[in-house]
Amino acid sequence: MRVLFIGDIVGKPGQDYVREVLKGLLRARRIDLVVANGENATNGRGINRLACEALYDAGVEIITMGNHTWDQKDSEALLEEDARIVRPANFPEGTPGRGYTVCKVAGKPFLVINLMGRTFLSQLDCPFREVDRILAAHPHIRHVLVDMHAETTSEKLAMGWHLDGRVSAVVGTHTHVPTADERVLPGGTAYITDVGMVGPRDGILGMDRDLVLRKMRTHLPVRFQVAGGPRQFCAVEVDLDDESGRARSIERIFLCEPG
Amino acid sequence: MRVLFIGDIVGKPGQDYVREVLKGLLRARRIDLVVANGENATNGRGINRLACEALYDAGVEIITMGNHTWDQKDSEALLEEDARIVRPANFPEGTPGRGYTVCKVAGKPFLVINLMGRTFLSQLDCPFREVDRILAAHPHIRHVLVDMHAETTSEKLAMGWHLDGRVSAVVGTHTHVPTADERVLPGGTAYITDVGMVGPRDGILGMDRDLVLRKMRTHLPVRFQVAGGPRQFCAVEVDLDDESGRARSIERIFLCEPG
Amino acid sequence: MRVLFIGDIVGKPGQDYVREVLKGLLRARRIDLVVANGENATNGRGINRLACEALYDAGVEIITMGNHTWDQKDSEALLEEDARIVRPANFPEGTPGRGYTVCKVAGKPFLVINLMGRTFLSQLDCPFREVDRILAAHPHIRHVLVDMHAETTSEKLAMGWHLDGRVSAVVGTHTHVPTADERVLPGGTAYITDVGMVGPRDGILGMDRDLVLRKMRTHLPVRFQVAGGPRQFCAVEVDLDDESGRARSIERIFLCEPG
Amino acid sequence: MRVLFIGDIVGKPGQDYVREVLKGLLRARRIDLVVANGENATNGRGINRLACEALYDAGVEIITMGNHTWDQKDSEALLEEDARIVRPANFPEGTPGRGYTVCKVAGKPFLVINLMGRTFLSQLDCPFREVDRILAAHPHIRHVLVDMHAETTSEKLAMGWHLDGRVSAVVGTHTHVPTADERVLPGGTAYITDVGMVGPRDGILGMDRDLVLRKMRTHLPVRFQVAGGPRQFCAVEVDLDDESGRARSIERIFLCEPG
Ligand SMILES: [Fe+2]
Ligand SMILES: [Fe+2]
Ligand SMILES: [Fe+2]
Ligand SMILES: [Fe+2]
Ligand SMILES: [Fe+2]
Ligand SMILES: [Fe+2]
Ligand SMILES: [Fe+2]
Ligand SMILES: [Fe+2]
Repeated sequence: MRVLFIGDIVGKPGQDYVREVLKGLLRARRIDLVVANGENATNGRGINRLACEALYDAGVEIITMGNHTWDQKDSEALLEEDARIVRPANFPEGTPGRGYTVCKVAGKPFLVINLMGRTFLSQLDCPFREVDRILAAHPHIRHVLVDMHAETTSEKLAMGWHLDGRVSAVVGTHTHVPTADERVLPGGTAYITDVGMVGPRDGILGMDRDLVLRKMRTHLPVRFQVAGGPRQFCAVEVDLDDESGRARSIERIFLCEPG
Repeated sequence: MRVLFIGDIVGKPGQDYVREVLKGLLRARRIDLVVANGENATNGRGINRLACEALYDAGVEIITMGNHTWDQKDSEALLEEDARIVRPANFPEGTPGRGYTVCKVAGKPFLVINLMGRTFLSQLDCPFREVDRILAAHPHIRHVLVDMHAETTSEKLAMGWHLDGRVSAVVGTHTHVPTADERVLPGGTAYITDVGMVGPRDGILGMDRDLVLRKMRTHLPVRFQVAGGPRQFCAVEVDLDDESGRARSIERIFLCEPG
Repeated sequence: MRVLFIGDIVGKPGQDYVREVLKGLLRARRIDLVVANGENATNGRGINRLACEALYDAGVEIITMGNHTWDQKDSEALLEEDARIVRPANFPEGTPGRGYTVCKVAGKPFLVINLMGRTFLSQLDCPFREVDRILAAHPHIRHVLVDMHAETTSEKLAMGWHLDGRVSAVVGTHTHVPTADERVLPGGTAYITDVGMVGPRDGILGMDRDLVLRKMRTHLPVRFQVAGGPRQFCAVEVDLDDESGRARSIERIFLCEPG
Repeated sequence: MRVLFIGDIVGKPGQDYVREVLKGLLRARRIDLVVANGENATNGRGINRLACEALYDAGVEIITMGNHTWDQKDSEALLEEDARIVRPANFPEGTPGRGYTVCKVAGKPFLVINLMGRTFLSQLDCPFREVDRILAAHPHIRHVLVDMHAETTSEKLAMGWHLDGRVSAVVGTHTHVPTADERVLPGGTAYITDVGMVGPRDGILGMDRDLVLRKMRTHLPVRFQVAGGPRQFCAVEVDLDDESGRARSIERIFLCEPG
């Protein structure tokens, strides 16, 4: 069973590039499930219905989120209505939307979980205990993908090792830069610290770099905008055993426009 | 001119692995200069004379540091005496040691600068203005390597773009996970967000993973120790034009023991 | 019913000054219960058996803690054994020690709860939900004192309003500077943002001020030491209705040596 | 020479209350100079021309700022034009506006400096070195007031001791809660960790408390609004020697509406 996980999709350039390249990838690689992090899909800040529809049209099936989950006006309504969108599960009980979702892939139930780290990022509930609770509540599901949205490499690596042998894959998001540490951990869990992003290659995290630099040098308020120019696509393909759910391999995919 | 930059070397396992693999690499790749980040060389915390000597013996010529610069008892004395060790230049004026050093490579003066980011990491002076000052003071040096030790991808990317066309290379350190975004920026500056580390592969940032996990789950104090097991080696080779100092290429190097 | 709450006691100077002044205060004010924050009692870092005994001898009956809870070697054992010491209740389940304790005051059960804030301080569980759980588990106790150990004024004020009318008093600790906002909130809960500390008056938070200043100006590592010189004593007296547990008044107490 | 310093003025309720009480205070106390922190004067976020004019009309002569300096649309223009507004001096060189201003009080030049702390708050230049530079550039001015806008008590206390004997007063702002530690330090500098705020008494830092509580409990985005209800006024009066500029006394002033 082949799963494609696409990193943080940034703005219209990111949406467009997904639409342009995804169908070809799915065909060439015979992908069974496409999950994408959509927390920056609408102007770099959250996701709205329009962006969701664009991503579904492009071939995305499940959307995970992160610290930008609530940035759009209709975020709460959208997450309540659309079971294909998953926000970090370690928000407190009673938070709108859902922290995980179950779909069917190759006839098997497939669990997608979104978690958010706390170091330098949030004051949510403990992601380690939260994921333990979710797994305990789904003892018969063997195919599980976790998007661990976090700032530090240590918290993501810790989640990878915490879940090794218990889920199919732990993929990190949020830093927008792909890491080169993809591997299958000894227990059979595919892992990467960060998948990277889809969007303008020559910005800073996909945003206009002059604006980000101005902010860092002056510490005056600057309104960031999604950058222009050539685009990149960052994803990983994870190959899972149909029966056991164990990962056989994880491969990093990087596409980039010339220019 | 070929420069090898080795990421954060962690503990005795990191030192040993450098010694075991470096000489072979230097021969095979005809390297002209070896720079390494040594901020974790002694038990994961700073560097002492013994560790410096071990790294010099192994072939390292310049050592850069980071937030662990002062972790060893004799750090201040060591940095005062040994001009081959460079600590972040954006410490306040009067700080022991030096923030950059000039050596000779292939008959040319070569400037190595160490900077530290501020986001989630330090309260040092502005690294952007500091590096501008250093470059202005060395107008005739065309070969410049910057180790940007920082937590966030955005601050490192900002430094890369800030210096593009003005230095030979900006290499990131501190997160201990190699990123897959190495490239030569349009102005001719080689860039990578993080080089990764040299040390135990199956720890968390090189430290024993059970201890790190215990800390993250319990929030009780835990004394971290350098992990055991198979080791990895993360570095980049940067190829520079002998005259202009512009980067022709940057290549990621990853070595790993079996097991 | 009169309760005296003493703010963070710092080091030997703090312990000594408590011993010198407390007995007189208890007599003069006819205090029924003495609670003190002891997180800095031993050399400014945590508390050990010796310091506990000194405080009990001086008249302290219950000790609350904070971010320094585990700083001493025998902290876990001590907190397991001694039911008079309370550490923040919003540590994860399974943490050694207890987050609240019930004693008898004037024939009534009296609940003392310790909580820790998260902003800029910790990654513990939500203190608001934790205190709700504790109160729900003790529906018949009407006399409740909460030590909210937190960095920001906003998180402490939020706890005060969250609990107004549900507990007798919310007293803040951790910043070591007494605030002048003591009052009884409309629902009958006595509140103060920070009680202040007991210890050397002319240090910075009780620590030697030259060392703290050196650290802030150089960003080099500095080992802090408890300051010398004249000492101050910061506490509040809360007067509670014997039946309802509602606060009738809260009064700030400040004693200081000459010099 | 008597100087009144008013803490963070929050929104229209804060402006109004200043107008209602200030003239009376000035008359009764024969105040020579009124300085106020205005960083929250316009809807809790920054200050615009309208709010400035209201404060000047009310009797304020110099306005200091803080982390909210740039929150209004016309902030940069306003600070460029109006020499009576001072923003933190440790913004980088080239920042719009000014970090200090000199006025005449009782025939003497009087220097007002604004600084911002870095811990948990900003990435500005070192406030300790910045204030040293400003003082060195004004060797003949003996009357100096410093508004140290900072989050932690330690950074404010450190600034107080750093400047003791070198300026007339160091007053802290930002936490919106008055501290009870006002005193004249041994060198003759009046000091208080935080002056407190002017605005709605029963909000949280002047903002609607239900909104702040909702945010702290849910971690969903909440748009804060200035609270209603009874208002408080927090200020300090500092009495300075006309010749030496040394502080003779510092007195906390707290006014509050009934209700
Ligand atoms: Fe994110
Ligand atoms: Fe993102
Ligand atoms: Fe580091
Ligand atoms: Fe490191
Ligand atoms: Fe504390
Ligand atoms: Fe404390
Ligand atoms: Fe502020
Ligand atoms: Fe403020």
